[in-house]
Amino acid sequence: MAELRAEAERREAACPLSGFPARFHLPAPPAIYLDGNSLGPLPRQTAARLQAVVERDWGEGLIGSWKDAGWLAAPTRIGDRIAPLVGAPPGTVIACDSVSVNLFRLLVAGLRRAGPGRPVVLMEADDFPTDRHIAEAACRMAGAALKAVPRGELLAALGPEVAVLLLSHVHYRTGAAWSLAEAGAAARAAGALTLLDLSHSAGVLEVGLEAHGIDLATGCGYKFLCGGSGAPAFAFVAPRHLEALDQPLAGWMGHAAPFAFEAGYRPDPGIRRLLAGTPPILAMAALEAGVATVAEAPIEAIAARARSLTGLLVDALDALDEPGLLIVTPRDPQARGAQISLAHPRAREIHDRLLARGITGDLRTAPGAPHLVRLGVSPLTLTHMQMVEAAAAVGEALAQLRRVAA
Amino acid sequence: MAELRAEAERREAACPLSGFPARFHLPAPPAIYLDGNSLGPLPRQTAARLQAVVERDWGEGLIGSWKDAGWLAAPTRIGDRIAPLVGAPPGTVIACDSVSVNLFRLLVAGLRRAGPGRPVVLMEADDFPTDRHIAEAACRMAGAALKAVPRGELLAALGPEVAVLLLSHVHYRTGAAWSLAEAGAAARAAGALTLLDLSHSAGVLEVGLEAHGIDLATGCGYKFLCGGSGAPAFAFVAPRHLEALDQPLAGWMGHAAPFAFEAGYRPDPGIRRLLAGTPPILAMAALEAGVATVAEAPIEAIAARARSLTGLLVDALDALDEPGLLIVTPRDPQARGAQISLAHPRAREIHDRLLARGITGDLRTAPGAPHLVRLGVSPLTLTHMQMVEAAAAVGEALAQLRRVAA
Repeated sequence: MAELRAEAERREAACPLSGFPARFHLPAPPAIYLDGNSLGPLPRQTAARLQAVVERDWGEGLIGSWKDAGWLAAPTRIGDRIAPLVGAPPGTVIACDSVSVNLFRLLVAGLRRAGPGRPVVLMEADDFPTDRHIAEAACRMAGAALKAVPRGELLAALGPEVAVLLLSHVHYRTGAAWSLAEAGAAARAAGALTLLDLSHSAGVLEVGLEAHGIDLATGCGYKFLCGGSGAPAFAFVAPRHLEALDQPLAGWMGHAAPFAFEAGYRPDPGIRRLLAGTPPILAMAALEAGVATVAEAPIEAIAARARSLTGLLVDALDALDEPGLLIVTPRDPQARGAQISLAHPRAREIHDRLLARGITGDLRTAPGAPHLVRLGVSPLTLTHMQMVEAAAAVGEALAQLRRVAA
Repeated sequence: MAELRAEAERREAACPLSGFPARFHLPAPPAIYLDGNSLGPLPRQTAARLQAVVERDWGEGLIGSWKDAGWLAAPTRIGDRIAPLVGAPPGTVIACDSVSVNLFRLLVAGLRRAGPGRPVVLMEADDFPTDRHIAEAACRMAGAALKAVPRGELLAALGPEVAVLLLSHVHYRTGAAWSLAEAGAAARAAGALTLLDLSHSAGVLEVGLEAHGIDLATGCGYKFLCGGSGAPAFAFVAPRHLEALDQPLAGWMGHAAPFAFEAGYRPDPGIRRLLAGTPPILAMAALEAGVATVAEAPIEAIAARARSLTGLLVDALDALDEPGLLIVTPRDPQARGAQISLAHPRAREIHDRLLARGITGDLRTAPGAPHLVRLGVSPLTLTHMQMVEAAAAVGEALAQLRRVAA
């Protein structure tokens, strides 16, 4: 491991983002937080920002803060800060609701846009459960059918009946990333819209929504965007679809003139038409602080650091020379997100032993799938040296398990 | 006004809740905040509670706080604190999403429960716009029709085709309150479900959901519950409907076992089935602090204080003897919410003059309706003396307007 440690020092010294972990509250060493893909850590600037919104804007400004403190503009202001992280133009991203609610509204909007001749939503059968549940619920309501196929057959299953290809950019268990160039082109060739779930890639990979011609997207605010537990999600609509987008949760905040109190619904001409209810201002404030922290770094640099960190973690795990330990995350750095998932017959015990010494990953079990230790590699909150230390801890956990067995 | 001031002092001294305004951050006198029906003021305990959730639970506890800090249970824990305020049994109320999103899910669930033989949602044409917009959106998706009729014809329009009577307990502009005993009985007699919007009554009137046999309800967290701007809403389902309730936003957090990551959707057996995405924990923490502050008082005492305050405000406005000033809110204390709305040809100027001297009400304009000055009377944050002062300020504004005209 000495060579790997030296390599970790070299890479950390060379990385332009090596100062970023200091901007977050993180557990004291030797603890390592490898669950930023589930809940991003607290940025140091968040508490003070939230306090100002609570005590000054709400406590003092009261109702006047809708205008005076910029509350009304918060969903689009935050959306415009997220936009460059996902390669979207200004005015196409908005912070609102949850990923589940956004998936519902965008799936229905996509089905409506495609029309009755394309009554099918296509997705990977093994996608994150909420994507599957909501796709079923949306299809049921919209009179469409859900076609859920194995990952390897997904793009080949595109056909003239498919309205929407629903795709999680990075798979929540394995960390495998789709090529959006490939998937977007395949969907386009079949005449289908692409709806991306960016929960495991926003803020950590170059998504390139505009570059890849993606139609619709949503993603999570509380993972790599560090917006706080259950933070508002975001949603994206390509400009070419915006004017005609017909979403089903047509509440008053998506109205062109919400404070005119008209009985008839006229959607906002832009991305605000995605809004339904009143934006959750306190949650928005924490999300804004998280996004502001992350967006200080260019997404290309963040993604490069993620590849460097996960690459070093893979190298250090390989160096353990543990034949039972299987890295299920793709070894091609371009084909993975910011996590490394490990299969092992004793995955649960490995996870528990890591946790007992302050190394927080998580265990992901699912019916029919091998148990996985999932090590999230949030690039702005971790160092290269921690990758080597985490791998060493996995090796020690396995050695302990052998000793107990012996 | 001297008599009215003496009466204000008497009532304040006799009221068991007269200590409550001290529990809130309020503008310094002579300013008076009469917009708690739009955004409830900041409870004094909220900032510290929220800070603890941010710095301790999120910052230190990180992902472990889902269990260790009670995050998972937050939606039902808060729901159970709201329940006694609206007369609902434990386990029937949950904090989630927005009123708009909850209206959509409950309307669709109600239509599904009623079945294809009852394809109509009935509501007041002049209800709050989001109720109207969402009802249209839900009916459109569910293949139902929306029947929106004038207020006076509402209950007579109930018929065998009506699945759901959608009713705002207190009207947002006029402050008029429905008799829930009467409306609930009428809907029941017609075989329709009653879905209440409690945005302008939760935390301020005796709602009595169980007593009146109400089926479904939702309401706002940021008005009289003082949960912060855009706070999560709440939703209620009567126990008799819970087991079969089939709601369309069926996301992973409403699953019976969200962390088993099953591909198939099995709803939670209880009220958690209303959940879609991950609960917004920071917003929930502020809502919980607001509800905790309000729920220290019994709802009967809160409602009695609201009637006393609005009654004194009506008396003081009457004492102005201004023939052009019309109180559009019902004079019967049992037939109104915690607000007094005033029609006047110069409503906008009255509102602006009040605001200029620190008396914050709001102006509500709507197509075809007279302009109204709406004075919200949040009973836990206002005093009887402020009712007399507010009325006096209205009188002074009118006198000034006459002087300018002369």
